[in-house]
Amino acid sequence: MTRIWVINPNTTGAMTDTIAHCAGAVAGSGVAITGITSEIGPESIESHYDEALSVPGVLRAVRRGEREGVDGYVIACFGDPGLDAAREVAAGPVIGIAEAAMQTASHLGSGFSIVTTLARTIGQSARLAERYGMQRFCRGIHACEIPVLDLDSDPNARKVVTEACRDALEADGSDVVVLGCAGMADMCAEISAELGVPVIDGVTAATLTVQSLVTMGLRTSKLGEYATPPKKRYRTGDPPAG
Amino acid sequence: MTRIWVINPNTTGAMTDTIAHCAGAVAGSGVAITGITSEIGPESIESHYDEALSVPGVLRAVRRGEREGVDGYVIACFGDPGLDAAREVAAGPVIGIAEAAMQTASHLGSGFSIVTTLARTIGQSARLAERYGMQRFCRGIHACEIPVLDLDSDPNARKVVTEACRDALEADGSDVVVLGCAGMADMCAEISAELGVPVIDGVTAATLTVQSLVTMGLRTSKLGEYATPPKKRYRTGDPPAG
Amino acid sequence: MTRIWVINPNTTGAMTDTIAHCAGAVAGSGVAITGITSEIGPESIESHYDEALSVPGVLRAVRRGEREGVDGYVIACFGDPGLDAAREVAAGPVIGIAEAAMQTASHLGSGFSIVTTLARTIGQSARLAERYGMQRFCRGIHACEIPVLDLDSDPNARKVVTEACRDALEADGSDVVVLGCAGMADMCAEISAELGVPVIDGVTAATLTVQSLVTMGLRTSKLGEYATPPKKRYRTGDPPAG
Amino acid sequence: MTRIWVINPNTTGAMTDTIAHCAGAVAGSGVAITGITSEIGPESIESHYDEALSVPGVLRAVRRGEREGVDGYVIACFGDPGLDAAREVAAGPVIGIAEAAMQTASHLGSGFSIVTTLARTIGQSARLAERYGMQRFCRGIHACEIPVLDLDSDPNARKVVTEACRDALEADGSDVVVLGCAGMADMCAEISAELGVPVIDGVTAATLTVQSLVTMGLRTSKLGEYATPPKKRYRTGDPPAG
Amino acid sequence: MTRIWVINPNTTGAMTDTIAHCAGAVAGSGVAITGITSEIGPESIESHYDEALSVPGVLRAVRRGEREGVDGYVIACFGDPGLDAAREVAAGPVIGIAEAAMQTASHLGSGFSIVTTLARTIGQSARLAERYGMQRFCRGIHACEIPVLDLDSDPNARKVVTEACRDALEADGSDVVVLGCAGMADMCAEISAELGVPVIDGVTAATLTVQSLVTMGLRTSKLGEYATPPKKRYRTGDPPAG
Amino acid sequence: MTRIWVINPNTTGAMTDTIAHCAGAVAGSGVAITGITSEIGPESIESHYDEALSVPGVLRAVRRGEREGVDGYVIACFGDPGLDAAREVAAGPVIGIAEAAMQTASHLGSGFSIVTTLARTIGQSARLAERYGMQRFCRGIHACEIPVLDLDSDPNARKVVTEACRDALEADGSDVVVLGCAGMADMCAEISAELGVPVIDGVTAATLTVQSLVTMGLRTSKLGEYATPPKKRYRTGDPPAG
Repeated sequence: MTRIWVINPNTTGAMTDTIAHCAGAVAGSGVAITGITSEIGPESIESHYDEALSVPGVLRAVRRGEREGVDGYVIACFGDPGLDAAREVAAGPVIGIAEAAMQTASHLGSGFSIVTTLARTIGQSARLAERYGMQRFCRGIHACEIPVLDLDSDPNARKVVTEACRDALEADGSDVVVLGCAGMADMCAEISAELGVPVIDGVTAATLTVQSLVTMGLRTSKLGEYATPPKKRYRTGDPPAG
Repeated sequence: MTRIWVINPNTTGAMTDTIAHCAGAVAGSGVAITGITSEIGPESIESHYDEALSVPGVLRAVRRGEREGVDGYVIACFGDPGLDAAREVAAGPVIGIAEAAMQTASHLGSGFSIVTTLARTIGQSARLAERYGMQRFCRGIHACEIPVLDLDSDPNARKVVTEACRDALEADGSDVVVLGCAGMADMCAEISAELGVPVIDGVTAATLTVQSLVTMGLRTSKLGEYATPPKKRYRTGDPPAG
Repeated sequence: MTRIWVINPNTTGAMTDTIAHCAGAVAGSGVAITGITSEIGPESIESHYDEALSVPGVLRAVRRGEREGVDGYVIACFGDPGLDAAREVAAGPVIGIAEAAMQTASHLGSGFSIVTTLARTIGQSARLAERYGMQRFCRGIHACEIPVLDLDSDPNARKVVTEACRDALEADGSDVVVLGCAGMADMCAEISAELGVPVIDGVTAATLTVQSLVTMGLRTSKLGEYATPPKKRYRTGDPPAG
Repeated sequence: MTRIWVINPNTTGAMTDTIAHCAGAVAGSGVAITGITSEIGPESIESHYDEALSVPGVLRAVRRGEREGVDGYVIACFGDPGLDAAREVAAGPVIGIAEAAMQTASHLGSGFSIVTTLARTIGQSARLAERYGMQRFCRGIHACEIPVLDLDSDPNARKVVTEACRDALEADGSDVVVLGCAGMADMCAEISAELGVPVIDGVTAATLTVQSLVTMGLRTSKLGEYATPPKKRYRTGDPPAG
Repeated sequence: MTRIWVINPNTTGAMTDTIAHCAGAVAGSGVAITGITSEIGPESIESHYDEALSVPGVLRAVRRGEREGVDGYVIACFGDPGLDAAREVAAGPVIGIAEAAMQTASHLGSGFSIVTTLARTIGQSARLAERYGMQRFCRGIHACEIPVLDLDSDPNARKVVTEACRDALEADGSDVVVLGCAGMADMCAEISAELGVPVIDGVTAATLTVQSLVTMGLRTSKLGEYATPPKKRYRTGDPPAG
Repeated sequence: MTRIWVINPNTTGAMTDTIAHCAGAVAGSGVAITGITSEIGPESIESHYDEALSVPGVLRAVRRGEREGVDGYVIACFGDPGLDAAREVAAGPVIGIAEAAMQTASHLGSGFSIVTTLARTIGQSARLAERYGMQRFCRGIHACEIPVLDLDSDPNARKVVTEACRDALEADGSDVVVLGCAGMADMCAEISAELGVPVIDGVTAATLTVQSLVTMGLRTSKLGEYATPPKKRYRTGDPPAG
């Protein structure tokens, strides 16, 4: 049995449930998906500050997973917080949902648009696109200005996101949409059906990427940058609050 | 049952067998892998000329697959011949092995080296790396100067390829290796075991990428560049021989 | 006497006549221009599929030219189909019209716009601009949505193309126009006169580039990527029809 | 009186003393420099993991500085940990030492080499060079393989670093050196004197950059990406230990 | 006493006065700022032609400064004319105002817009942004179409520039403005106050950059490209007039 | 009769003779080539300083050519000094030899090496390669360390340059050579014969590029950046001497 942990880097359990449900729906037979809610950090991630403070929680989850023999990890926030550090710590593969979503989109069309939550996160998505080599496929990043935690509660959320996707396709001349927040995972199929183009959810894309890597027996290289980090003395203490 | 065709763009059936075997070994339950040998074109692909003349055979295979309701395709030659055209013609996803191998490698280390057959193909691999946004991860492309069809017959082939991989890691300061020929697919596990780093075979990587896309219900976008090509009158005739 | 073949990669002879006429009008004394219509492939090239199936015909023409001692070749379709393979096969220089048109435009202004036929070909033009290093001069690519074979028959074609050029200059803030189809070659002078900016036709630009290379005694290097391709066994057969 | 805090992101007070001394030596009249040792996190930063866990301490320091009315901040670790988040939180300017060192080097020659501590951090420096637009000036990044905390205690450290700088200039054909660790700040003048080229220490460079920004009355823009982060509920808890 | 010359590359003394005043207002204690009006060349710089003919005057000023023991130089025209040559000739640092302004802007936001005088100079600013690695921060370059010498005399100039800045922020989604002409130096504070974002004047930014370099004891490297130029025989004569 | 001026930007008449001879040898019937020696500036160009002071002489020559109705210009120094300004001033096309040589090389192989005179000019060649989009073809720039004026007088010069070319091909894995100095124009054929690869001389390449542009009736666009420069008052005076 392959065990994959899908880590929600924020502390909102309801969002973990949605994410784990989406991941579980695509996992192959013989693959067990577990949703993990971060134990420390912000309730949602909408700034560099939030993201920075979510990373210790992600790493604590990965440390725990390693003790329990987990085979691979998904980091289920579109900023891919803590990805590099998690790769140092984990033996198996670690994939971020932005990374997986963008690469998946690159297989399906000539260019994609990202539709995300708040405009202030556009810069981070753009830098991730560059980081992953996906800048040449990413034709635009657009905000729907719905806060992360309202995606679930706002009855108009799906409609607003759908219209933002439609506008993005038109404005960018793109032919694929990437949803830029794990909280949009369960909207994916309906938006795709409505717009008639591939719409990518990073949670499922990353889950299947991890599953594929485990199937191929591939793990993060420990030869270079992602070698196990050297032992250190750490001084603990509370991070700053919000 | 999901049906994936793994198309060998050259006309050498023995190579198709190896490829199909590797693909089948990683495919999930409920996925049927079929190896398809191209019916027209060169016996192996080692030049732009070979590659150009292999494309009609790839497209003929995809056309046939469409009539038979195939769910997705792998193009199993590291030049990814005919990929764009195949995407126009197929309803389901089409993935090249260079594309899949490089993206897979980008998940596992800070930079990869490609080890390929003849030096004259290095330029094509470099352009594909750029095309897929993988240039920033690709630290070097190296030839072992073994012709494609000798990979199987030459008793020293695996050893030569292994040493080329070892040298490449050192010369490039990379931490992952990508094997640059479908004919190397069955060497992958042994080389990885010997070198202690991830070694990527594009055939298995592409097969699992197609499988994942089909699982997610994702197909090539028909909105833009990859829309079904317009009907045309074609004049047929023999291509130039080698 | 220098002999240059201007190869029309589609099978429409009337288009070859136009192209050869434009090429002949600029060729120097002592240079014989011959228009060659491809013997196999599509009647016009408006998709990756068309382009892929046009390449064997281009290569057959070059093979024939080599037997006849031709000094250099122009590939007269804006996708530059088969350029790399033709360079392997030919002794003398081979130039694509997209390549020549973009480089010519780069000498004459700070940035150019391309006006092409169908929007679905924009991606290919963009990749060629990148391939040739011309991305930094290319400020936009615009479609007039006139099919290739209608450029000649549609009485409004020149007007529509002219207005597309005018709009492109304005939208892109560019100061030069590149016509993105060999079928527009004979519109070039009139559009330039009307708009008051340089308008580049790739057929004449490529013809003079080949002529200049022959004058300087320069041929494709056979040291590396463009060395004569290795001999192979080829299996012939009909390519898929449209 | 302008107040600038030079934050040492690791928890080693002796290193803060060195840093603060170097910063103080260049500060203008009317500028008070205070060295701040991070209260939480690792004793030195030599991996992505260390860096990730140093960020909460950096942000806690900036939060405290804001309450005390500090005018600007230097983040004195060559990974520039927490820079984006600190810019959201601080009113005045925040500068990383990698950022300042590389930009300073770009004014003084045609290309620089970075000499850093452990090879495993080279990837991070390369990404920062890209992030700051300095990739075109950065001709190589070299490790001297001295751990951060040994820079001070190892009697051969300065000699080893000097030789690494000399080798880097030769290997890269560069004409300026950037020291890639705050712990090398006090070696700068001597190495420069020995090698006869500019050698840049980021601590002094960043301190003077902050001082200049404050003099010009310039602060981080709050219009876009660096606006004050939205209020959130945070769950606190111990990060994972080393 | 540190002596910095702020060289106005055009021959209009009134503009030198404005520039020197702005530079002097930010210089530290112990730093003497001298404004230098070029003795040969055009009255203002609004074309490549003007810029080319301003360079000999800049170099004559630097030659004179070297004889007088000047510590560093600012070239106070947004085209940074003669920067490379001046670096060869001067012992101390030489900084252009475009270089300094763009790098300063990169510290303060996620992206900046440049507002310059005439549209015909946009290309040059774009190339400088690339040259300095600032292309990734520069989101747009906009002309207010006020000639350089009218910036001072036109009573509406500041208002027009302010509105151009406001429009640029909106159009580009940027959060910082760079003023693209030394003649705008004295408008900087007011525009910033009105728009509520950082507005950068290159004259003050470059002056403080030179001051910082001198404080750190840093000079242009003489190891490579900026070594003292070899002695030559020169034929003198009048340049072409305007 | 088409009249092309080949301007030698240095003041050494013997070098002009060589250049004009090479240009004349390739010009078509009906094309008159005139070599023009710059009347002001340095005897040879081997630094940014030399180059800057050569530009007024180039522009004076172009101004004179315009009065005499010249059809097009070649700037025959590998730094392409004054190219942008000359394009503003001239009605017909202006081509630099670096520009023409690099673009010509890009047609003939997969990558070229530049062999130039002094190492201190490598940076300038690299920036021109970038400027013209040729960076992707340029695999290395190498100095033979022969001063420009010794190319003619040193009896070993051709041998030294030939060996530098041979080494460059090997070191860079390139298949074409570009000679990086107008003073090497007459060595081109012999080196090519000896090395068996295309060797490009920019003087002939640029001359034929200008001739081709004139044949096509193409001139520099006056719509944007290269519009005629605005009239100005100029203060004349001697530039600084060497």
